Amino acid sequence: MSNYVSVDHLKFLLDEVHNLEEVLGLDRFSDYDMEGINILLDSSKELSDKELFPYFTEMDRVGAKYENGTITCHPQIENVMKMYGENGFICPHFDYEEGGSQMPHMASLAVGFISTAANNTAVGYPGLTAGAAGLIRSYASKELFDTYVPKMMAGEWGGTMALTEPHAGSSLSDIVTSARLIEDGSYNIEGHKIFISAGDHQCCENIVHLTLARIEGAPAGTKGISLFVVPKYMPTEDGLIDNDVFTAGEFEKMGQRGYVTTHLVFGDKQNCKGFLVGEANRGLKYMFQMMNGARLEVGLTAAAIASAAYHQSLQYAKERSQGRKLDGSGGKNINASQTLIINHPDVRRMLLLQKSVVEGCASLLILCGKYLDMSHYAADETTKEKYHDLLELLTPIAKTYPSEMGRISTSNGMQVLGGYGFTTDFPLEQLYRDIRITAIYEGTTGIQSLDLLGRKVLMKNGAALMSLMQEINNDIALAETYEDLKPYTDKLKSALQQTQKVLVHLSQFALAGKFERFLADATIFMEMTSTVIIAWQWITMASNAKQALVTGQLNQSQQFYEAQIHTMKFYFKYELPKIKGHIETLLSDEVLTIAEEKAVEAFS
Amino acid sequence: MSNYVSVDHLKFLLDEVHNLEEVLGLDRFSDYDMEGINILLDSSKELSDKELFPYFTEMDRVGAKYENGTITCHPQIENVMKMYGENGFICPHFDYEEGGSQMPHMASLAVGFISTAANNTAVGYPGLTAGAAGLIRSYASKELFDTYVPKMMAGEWGGTMALTEPHAGSSLSDIVTSARLIEDGSYNIEGHKIFISAGDHQCCENIVHLTLARIEGAPAGTKGISLFVVPKYMPTEDGLIDNDVFTAGEFEKMGQRGYVTTHLVFGDKQNCKGFLVGEANRGLKYMFQMMNGARLEVGLTAAAIASAAYHQSLQYAKERSQGRKLDGSGGKNINASQTLIINHPDVRRMLLLQKSVVEGCASLLILCGKYLDMSHYAADETTKEKYHDLLELLTPIAKTYPSEMGRISTSNGMQVLGGYGFTTDFPLEQLYRDIRITAIYEGTTGIQSLDLLGRKVLMKNGAALMSLMQEINNDIALAETYEDLKPYTDKLKSALQQTQKVLVHLSQFALAGKFERFLADATIFMEMTSTVIIAWQWITMASNAKQALVTGQLNQSQQFYEAQIHTMKFYFKYELPKIKGHIETLLSDEVLTIAEEKAVEAFS
Repeated sequence: MSNYVSVDHLKFLLDEVHNLEEVLGLDRFSDYDMEGINILLDSSKELSDKELFPYFTEMDRVGAKYENGTITCHPQIENVMKMYGENGFICPHFDYEEGGSQMPHMASLAVGFISTAANNTAVGYPGLTAGAAGLIRSYASKELFDTYVPKMMAGEWGGTMALTEPHAGSSLSDIVTSARLIEDGSYNIEGHKIFISAGDHQCCENIVHLTLARIEGAPAGTKGISLFVVPKYMPTEDGLIDNDVFTAGEFEKMGQRGYVTTHLVFGDKQNCKGFLVGEANRGLKYMFQMMNGARLEVGLTAAAIASAAYHQSLQYAKERSQGRKLDGSGGKNINASQTLIINHPDVRRMLLLQKSVVEGCASLLILCGKYLDMSHYAADETTKEKYHDLLELLTPIAKTYPSEMGRISTSNGMQVLGGYGFTTDFPLEQLYRDIRITAIYEGTTGIQSLDLLGRKVLMKNGAALMSLMQEINNDIALAETYEDLKPYTDKLKSALQQTQKVLVHLSQFALAGKFERFLADATIFMEMTSTVIIAWQWITMASNAKQALVTGQLNQSQQFYEAQIHTMKFYFKYELPKIKGHIETLLSDEVLTIAEEKAVEAFS
Repeated sequence: MSNYVSVDHLKFLLDEVHNLEEVLGLDRFSDYDMEGINILLDSSKELSDKELFPYFTEMDRVGAKYENGTITCHPQIENVMKMYGENGFICPHFDYEEGGSQMPHMASLAVGFISTAANNTAVGYPGLTAGAAGLIRSYASKELFDTYVPKMMAGEWGGTMALTEPHAGSSLSDIVTSARLIEDGSYNIEGHKIFISAGDHQCCENIVHLTLARIEGAPAGTKGISLFVVPKYMPTEDGLIDNDVFTAGEFEKMGQRGYVTTHLVFGDKQNCKGFLVGEANRGLKYMFQMMNGARLEVGLTAAAIASAAYHQSLQYAKERSQGRKLDGSGGKNINASQTLIINHPDVRRMLLLQKSVVEGCASLLILCGKYLDMSHYAADETTKEKYHDLLELLTPIAKTYPSEMGRISTSNGMQVLGGYGFTTDFPLEQLYRDIRITAIYEGTTGIQSLDLLGRKVLMKNGAALMSLMQEINNDIALAETYEDLKPYTDKLKSALQQTQKVLVHLSQFALAGKFERFLADATIFMEMTSTVIIAWQWITMASNAKQALVTGQLNQSQQFYEAQIHTMKFYFKYELPKIKGHIETLLSDEVLTIAEEKAVEAFS
């Protein structure tokens, strides 16, 4: 029953669709080849089957227990951290000399997809540790790196991101946690942080909080925020000593119940020490760089949860008999035995919807992994910049589409199981609860949509967007060489033209200084754009599948490739048409959501 | 914090939009007047504030405990059953001589909306009891009525519907529970029933199961199913004695955790007695009549849960500060204090979406209540038949739209709260879990959609549909008299024409005997049709609001009526355009969800 992911599809994405070879051709990755990556994926699946998937339900049931200032989570987390540490899974993309294995992000994202689909709770702990270690690596001193990162990479110490405060959730400019310089060059930290994932538990001997705070006298707003390393226990020559980070509580949540969410108090006894990372007042800039990675991780988490829901419901549909197919007269032969539910059109629709969303998301995420690799390690600066811009543009989509459509996809998975899907006897209900948070954390869907429309689409005078259009058009040109794909490439071209028209329409408000109007329907703009971006992914997957079928160079079964083309057609029939509604909404002259004076009366 | 419903809006629907006076003019309801109904609504709200809402979260946390063949639920259920019994709330629509108060369904649905929004768990118990009592009343002998119904109406005994079996969920023709005639004219019942809501608990002294079973030798399929009254304890002269109904287990569920869901075993010791209701082999017909009512109840449950989510999130948005509004330069003044989140356009969009869904659903449900009253108590048979047909046609929509769009609405409610919405500190997460079941029970969305397209739309050669079009056109004609509503009535007329075109397109497959093709996209047809039906409700609400504003005959505040028109505009900008996508999908020539020979390979 370890049905939660298609490793074959991930191989197809890496090997055929997104051409991992191109990345492996870069100097940095000279020790890797495709065969090795494929073996890596297979062994990740085996390890996930053994160490992650069996604990998925249990971690939810055990949850997190808060008592007397400490939190206990499922003990398997300790094994997971150690296993990740021993296998070099925590920061595999780091340089060799930093203790990493210089793994391409493209590959590590695929590995992450497998393990997250197996158990999204467990992987959060090493995942956040990696994020925190990455920040230290990028911006902190060598001394801080040497003190903290090796322990984190070994899975002995955990890491967190401590951003949110009780009155500063989405609005980071309002954080008030303070930092006061003391004699030894470190800072006294004081303040409350809430919703800190993996912020306290018994499974690591220390936890390193990458914490945003305001140095006394710093400018107001986001320009006065600095980043600090604040350990739970201070490493000294005499070992670890308490650093006055108090756990005030644990948030009980609807989903991801085994992934602890804490309320931390720094410096309750004025005795909490932090170390400045990089320069003062540049904390938010640093954090944002990390947050881009974190946003991809959230998109991946959502897509992987939806993947588990898809494969679980597919399995069920292949085994469960119920009802009968209609006969030629529109009736049913009640003397015939029941049919498997996979034979009912509406069940197939729900399964194909899931397949189209899950595999479409996986494709986009692997592509972002490629852009990430290219942006760091391409041969020249111009190429690096191009891929950096593409990644900037696609990141809000890669976070949001999986979070939003993955939720709907997972709901369809539950629906396939009917009443059983609503019970705790099957994992669907947990997946349904778990995925809901992804549209909220690391920037809500609303925030991502403002980022997409308000910043990314127009950044560098639209250069990133031009660059993206070039990528899409290249893929369309390839797909068009197959006559039977042409009706679909035509639809995609038309969709691109229409979305362009919408953008021109909205831009006039920005040009006229009507920014609130410009951005009021950003979320609908996100729905439209992301739907088109996934259509692009499907054209590209179908085009590569077609190529395999035509050339006869099959890495997978013939059915595999045919199913790719079939799913592309499904997406173009059932999903892409939704943009017609978005377009009508976005071109509408009516302004209905901007608060006027009687802001509250509108809801009388 | 008792924000879960707008009683004012329910009054508006009854008094102004759907003209309850017309129903009150029928002989049966001569003891009622509008003022009395308004008082009834107010007192229902007070009672719900006191006896239902405060226990909502607690009932979820306590859940249902199964131990040694018995189930314990929250003790307040006993008080609720008694309170409902004492106040005559269980079957208020029954005749005076049956112990009822001849209340119009229109009014009892509005009352039910209030209590269900307060606590959807608690009201399930009296609700199912009413359904079971209604079946006995309609089809069973006077003896069975006298033995069981008075106790049920008093809230002393509970009632259930026992339909589903382990291998017969949506496919009732496959039930195998058996009934064998014995000497005294009753039947020995043997079989397993699963997913039986309120099937066992300590809060009633007896539970009466309305049970589907197959009399030995009965025809196969649905034509061999009979309906039985099977009590948990047999009432005898010596009191209640055990009737061999064993509770084998309780299903733990994601939501409605306080509403017990049981696995019952009838006749494990061959000692379970049941009494035939009505004629043999007509059980499914009887049950279906009841199921129509139950489907309205499910729609109402979903709409009421979404109502609670809307009002809770609205309250939060009015109190929570976060971020700043954009200024004229597109920037934010960080020295200004934070703004209430209700002032952010995307938050307003999420609130207006909820308002448009919740109030649109309430309007449709109250209208169905009116049709129900008219179908039973109108003066002549032709009128009765007309309203019966209208109700038949609208029932699958009134069940499905609230279940599907209510879920999305509730998700938007959670999103308004951000991270807090995902925690158990607020009721949103429970509402989100609770509402999910409504798209599954009493016929899944897939089943309802087959019913709508496959049976209802074409029933009586389309007479019901013609009748519905007449109703809609009457409302459009009224609305069109207001010049500023005309752009919206035009849109509705265009939407109706387009859906008509889709129906003609699909019907050709039915005429050609291609039934599987005809019905393959029934769920998309449901999405389209229900979206248009709610647009009709909004035109009607806006038209009545406009009338109040123009005539100055205001039962509510001026803002209330203006907000109705504003919300109609919102629905027409953001929701109605979605049908464009549905239409493209439904008119597509591609057939992608009908299983061919390689049914499973399509998912390779």
